[in-house]
Parts: sequence; C-alpha cells; structure tokens
Amino acid sequence: MKRSLLFSLVLLAFIGLACQQEKSVSDSVSEKSENSAEEIVAIVIHGGAGVMSRDRMSEEKQKEYIAKLDEAISKGHSILRDGGTAMEAVQRTINILEDSPLFNAGKGAVFNHEGYNELDASIMDGQTLNAGAVAGITNVKNPINLAYEVMANSDHVLLSGSGAQEFAKTRNIEMVDTSYFATPSRLEALKRAQNKTALLNWEDKKFGTVGCVALDKDGNIVAGTSTGGMTNKRWNRIGDSPIIGAGTYANNATCGVSSTGWGEYFIRLAVAHDISAQMLYKNTSLQEAAEDVILKKLPEIGGDGGIVALDKDGNISMVFNTPGMFRASIDKNGEKTIKIFK
Amino acid sequence: MKRSLLFSLVLLAFIGLACQQEKSVSDSVSEKSENSAEEIVAIVIHGGAGVMSRDRMSEEKQKEYIAKLDEAISKGHSILRDGGTAMEAVQRTINILEDSPLFNAGKGAVFNHEGYNELDASIMDGQTLNAGAVAGITNVKNPINLAYEVMANSDHVLLSGSGAQEFAKTRNIEMVDTSYFATPSRLEALKRAQNKTALLNWEDKKFGTVGCVALDKDGNIVAGTSTGGMTNKRWNRIGDSPIIGAGTYANNATCGVSSTGWGEYFIRLAVAHDISAQMLYKNTSLQEAAEDVILKKLPEIGGDGGIVALDKDGNISMVFNTPGMFRASIDKNGEKTIKIFK
Repeated sequence: MKRSLLFSLVLLAFIGLACQQEKSVSDSVSEKSENSAEEIVAIVIHGGAGVMSRDRMSEEKQKEYIAKLDEAISKGHSILRDGGTAMEAVQRTINILEDSPLFNAGKGAVFNHEGYNELDASIMDGQTLNAGAVAGITNVKNPINLAYEVMANSDHVLLSGSGAQEFAKTRNIEMVDTSYFATPSRLEALKRAQNKTALLNWEDKKFGTVGCVALDKDGNIVAGTSTGGMTNKRWNRIGDSPIIGAGTYANNATCGVSSTGWGEYFIRLAVAHDISAQMLYKNTSLQEAAEDVILKKLPEIGGDGGIVALDKDGNISMVFNTPGMFRASIDKNGEKTIKIFK
Repeated sequence: MKRSLLFSLVLLAFIGLACQQEKSVSDSVSEKSENSAEEIVAIVIHGGAGVMSRDRMSEEKQKEYIAKLDEAISKGHSILRDGGTAMEAVQRTINILEDSPLFNAGKGAVFNHEGYNELDASIMDGQTLNAGAVAGITNVKNPINLAYEVMANSDHVLLSGSGAQEFAKTRNIEMVDTSYFATPSRLEALKRAQNKTALLNWEDKKFGTVGCVALDKDGNIVAGTSTGGMTNKRWNRIGDSPIIGAGTYANNATCGVSSTGWGEYFIRLAVAHDISAQMLYKNTSLQEAAEDVILKKLPEIGGDGGIVALDKDGNISMVFNTPGMFRASIDKNGEKTIKIFK
C-alpha cells in the first residue's frame, strides 16, 4: 500500500514537472514568435490555375513563365526585405504580372464576348480591414493600382465600369487606350470559345488571374488580385477577383488569401473569407483551412481553381485542385519556390 | 465510514438518474425538432436600418411603414404556409417592398450623384449555395427577380450595368423607364446631400435597403436583398447588397442573412458569411453570432446597420446598432412581430 502511494506521488510530481516544462517551452515559442514577427517577411504569388501538363507546354514556354514569376516574386521580396510595406510589395509585384502578356491580367487579359478586355482587381489591408476594388474597367493600365486608390482615396470599396474610370481620372493613374490590352493569342482564344466546333487548347482551360499576398516587417498582411476574367464572358459579368471575401481577403489576425479559378464558385463559398474564418473560429492552421476549402468544399459544388495564402507567422500555402497553378513564393527563411505543375 | 459510503452511493445513483432524465428530455426535444423541421416555416424582413426616433417620425408615417411591412411579411408567410418554396416567398415579399416608394429599393430608390437610380440586388439558395446578383441596373422593375434569373438561367453569379440589362431582355422580366423609380422625396434628399449647408432629415440618415430570409417546409433557407444604394453615390459604386457573403448569404447547414447598413463596412467584414461561419465553426447560436458581428465587430471599424436572419430551426434574429430598423417576422409558432424602433 505504501509503495503504491509512493509510486502515485512520484507519478504526480512527474506529471507536474512535465506540465511546467511544456508551459515554459510554449512561453519561449510565443516569445520567439513575437520577436521574429518584427523581423520576418514572406511573399507568395500566383499567375492562375488550370489544366496544364508538362507534355502540352513547351519547355521554352515553361521557362518564360518561370522567369516572369521569378522577376515578380524577387521584386516583391526585395521591397519587403528593405523594409517596404506589404501594400507596396503587393502592388509592385502584381504590376509586373499585369504588364506581362503571359498572364490574364492587364496586358494579355482575355477578351469578353463583345471583343474587348474588361479588367477587375482588388486589394485588402489586413491591419485595418480596409479594402478597395474595381470591376469592368477598360483603360487603366494597372487595375490593382486603381483598386488601391479606391481604398485609400474614396469612401467606397468597389467601383465599377465607366464610373471607376471617372474616378481614375481624379487620381494619378496611368490610362491607356483599350487596344493596349489586346494580344493576338487572346483574340484567337476568343474565336475558339465562340466557335463551338473549335478545339480548345490548354491555354483556354486555365484561369490566368494573378495575385499576391505579402507579410512585411511590421507584421502587416496585404492580399491583392487582378484579372481579365473569363474568355467570352458576357453581360458585364463580375467574377470573384474584385469581390472582397471571395477573390481576396486579408486579416492580420489570421491570414491573407488571393484566389484564382472559376470565380462563380469562389463567390458562392466566399473562399478567401472562409479560409480566414476557419483559422479564427476553429483554430485550424492555414494549410488545413485552405485544403478544406479548395480540395473538399470547392469540388463538392463543382468548382475548380486554387489559392495562394500566408499567415501571420509567415507560413505559406499554395493549394489548387487543377493539374497546375503558376506559383512562386519566398518564405520567412528566404527560400524561393517557383512551380507550374503539381 | 459505512455511512459516508452509503451517502456516496446514493449520490451517484441520484446523479445517474438525473443524467438519464436529462437524456430522455433531450431525446424528446430532438424528436420534436426533427418532426417539426418538416413542418415549420418562418420568415423575417427588413426595410432598412438608420437614425430614426419616435419623435421625429409622424404617427401617420409610422402607420404607413407598419402597414407595408405587414403586407409583405404576411404575403411571404402565406406562400410558405401553403407549401410554397422559400425561393418564391423571398421574391414575392421583396417585390412588395420594391414596389413601395417607402423603401430604398425599386420604386423610391435613392438617387445617385448623376441624378438617376442605380439598383442592386442578390439572392442565395441555402440548399445548393447557388446565388445570383445584379449591380447598377437602371430599368428593371424588380431587381430581385433579375438576380434570381442570373442564378437560375446564366452561368454567372454577378452581372452589372448595361450587360445585366441586356441579359434581362433575354428573360421574361418587366422593364420600365428609368423615370419609374424616381420619387420627389428622394430627389429632395439628393439635393440636400449635394448642398453641404442643407440640414439632413432622418430619412437621409437611414439605409432603406430591403431584405428577406425565409425557411420553407422542406427546410430550405433562402436570403435576398434589394437596394438603391446610397444617396449621392458616385462612380458606379457597388455596395454590399449584391455581394454574396456581405449583403446576402444562405446555407441550409447554418442560416440565411440579409444586411442593411453602410455597405462598405459590411463588405470588409463579409458580414453575412461571417455570421454563418461562426455558427459552423464555433457552434454558436445565430443570435450570438449576429450580435458579435453587428454589435461588436462592426462598430469597432466604424460601421453601422443591421441584419435580419433565421437559422435552420426557424429561430429568428433581428440585430442592429442604429436607433431603428424597419423589421418584421413571423416565427415558427406563427407569431408576428413588426417594429421600427429599438
């Protein structure tokens, strides 16, 4: 009896000690995380998800994409590393992708049913939850910059069509002729989409939206998305890219997210906000939340696409349910990743 | 020692019995709830939230509002009680509010900066998560019906401006001249808003958006919202009403929500989706979730307004952080509530 009592006492003491140790470990982790939160930077981008496979994309084309993704992610990371804001990094990074005809945003945007390019973009500041967005604009060179102007210099979140362009004229925003956006390959894609007997190629089956999420040295998360929408879209259709909560969301308490995919499904699931909400209310990790939404909920209702995201500790997620997604990241350790296929 | 052992045994037996009883009570409750889930119907509407007080609104005006809210809620409830769908009930109920010049939706919508009426609406089906919305339309008599057509008969969720109207022409939708929406009192409101020295009256300080959420006998939840937006809005501003996740959300697993208020803040918080997400991920009640978002999060970032909502069991919430909100409900017991002030 005495021996079992002694054993119990030893066991209790051991458990007590273990608990104490666990606590001090978790204390030191949280201290470390607080310290490093002031230092770390991280950035992630996408150039659209879709049906792409190694054997259908020439090596040369792959190299072109990888070089442009590299240029964009490196630019954004250097801004962050030099102490620039996530707000600045996201815009400059997206500008590089918008200016490249490789992606469906800015120059190289897809054509709508009527034969011109209608652009959407949004940006959100995770510190203040401020946000700005534009939909259906046709002559602003870099739609993400106009989305920023809506956030910073209007009372509104979302401006559309000719009104958004009237607003652009009141700001220092580069305007271009609508012909600037038109590229021969996108025009061919429109013709294929409008000719029901034409064979679609892999480029017709990707969503070339671009997006960026960045974490700066102050711990601020910013997310942004820019797109030309869907080839052959009609009736001034607005997809998820300019919709805060669907295409873009950022909250310093959780994460920042930028989506790419079949926008209608992303709107119905409020994809970007849902990932943030799962982290906030279920205490799941960013990766778990992103996988739940993109790999489970989205296919359940028939949608496809992907997201890039990062959380307040600089953890990065790039999750998609399509064969490929143009993507790149530089993580909190400075490690660079650039990929196209699964 | 023996007495204390006996006491402990009696206590344990008592606890066991209590648990047993509690279980059987909860069983019978859950049975009742399962049965009644096939039977119950419930409906809730709002006609906008804002700065309104008893002494600034004539009794006659109050009676007018109450009569119209009564007409709308009774119509919707009778559809549900007769076995109609929530989809039908929400549209017909909102049509009554859209057709009344008392509310800022359809006839009686507020004027934009340029002096005409731009209307937004959205509707969502909680069973399928299908959704439809329109933004910035100017000659469709009942915008909520066009939102339904977008959901039911297009590949898209959100159509805007002239494109949305082109789509309307392909459907059996009643079109009207833009002058149909114009009312003298809203024109006066625009003049006051544009004349910075004018004294605003209480009607200038309310958000007259209308909305409805209904639960039908099949357990389906549908939410819808229709609005003229903000007086003096510019640049084709789009508020929260046509944004799925902000102004409207419905999910049979949780609840349906329709918002009214300063739309920009509702977009930034993804108000309607956030209420649904809290129920899903934190297992909170509808009322708790709605109070957290409307009474805590919204004022924290400077926003005001309210929501009406109901959950899958027919529980109704009407939560607002303004002095008043035009609202009415008929709950699962058939009890009617119609109120304007706090």
